[in-house]
Amino acid sequence: MHIKPYTDIAAVNVASDQVRDVTMRVVIGPDQSAPNFIMRVFEIAPGGYSYKHQHDYEHEIFFHAGHGEVVYEDRTVPVGPGAIAFIKPNALHQIRNTGGETLTFICVIPNPE
Amino acid sequence: MHIKPYTDIAAVNVASDQVRDVTMRVVIGPDQSAPNFIMRVFEIAPGGYSYKHQHDYEHEIFFHAGHGEVVYEDRTVPVGPGAIAFIKPNALHQIRNTGGETLTFICVIPNPE
Repeated sequence: MHIKPYTDIAAVNVASDQVRDVTMRVVIGPDQSAPNFIMRVFEIAPGGYSYKHQHDYEHEIFFHAGHGEVVYEDRTVPVGPGAIAFIKPNALHQIRNTGGETLTFICVIPNPE
Repeated sequence: MHIKPYTDIAAVNVASDQVRDVTMRVVIGPDQSAPNFIMRVFEIAPGGYSYKHQHDYEHEIFFHAGHGEVVYEDRTVPVGPGAIAFIKPNALHQIRNTGGETLTFICVIPNPE
């Protein structure tokens, strides 16, 4: 059984000179033998941002807490608690914390295995 | 582009004599040509509960707001904002609102197509 606060799962820093103040937790994934998709929880500190990049798989995102914006191709969309975002395969994207609190969101990706 | 508050998406009542006061929104799915998995947002009113059932596909769940409990096989686990739950294929499960506010959670399933 795997039912717990996401904060019980170890966070790792996403370390890169293209990323600022981002941690990631794989909350449901290979450790649970999840067969089809992987749930991660990201936290971005105020002023922080994720990679601005693109890849051949999709993201399905739900914003849990804090305020920020999603860069999607040539647009920027503000988001807050309860916002959802579908990042299509190969779409350029970035997530930025524009608020004063931690921006927390879940991001589901396909299982590459 | 599909980035918006989940409440902008139409809710449907989950109508059954085995379910009480549950609405569902398919927030990312076939309408967006999501290729691998589908994100739904459920709201359960105080005193409400979802099906107690099992099926051959998994759920990956994140609790956004409110308080409740997950029945998983022969156990019952309290959950609140930020809890995650992995429901393995074929595991008996139910979600109940035990609090005084709406219980809101996302539940991701594989795309059956």
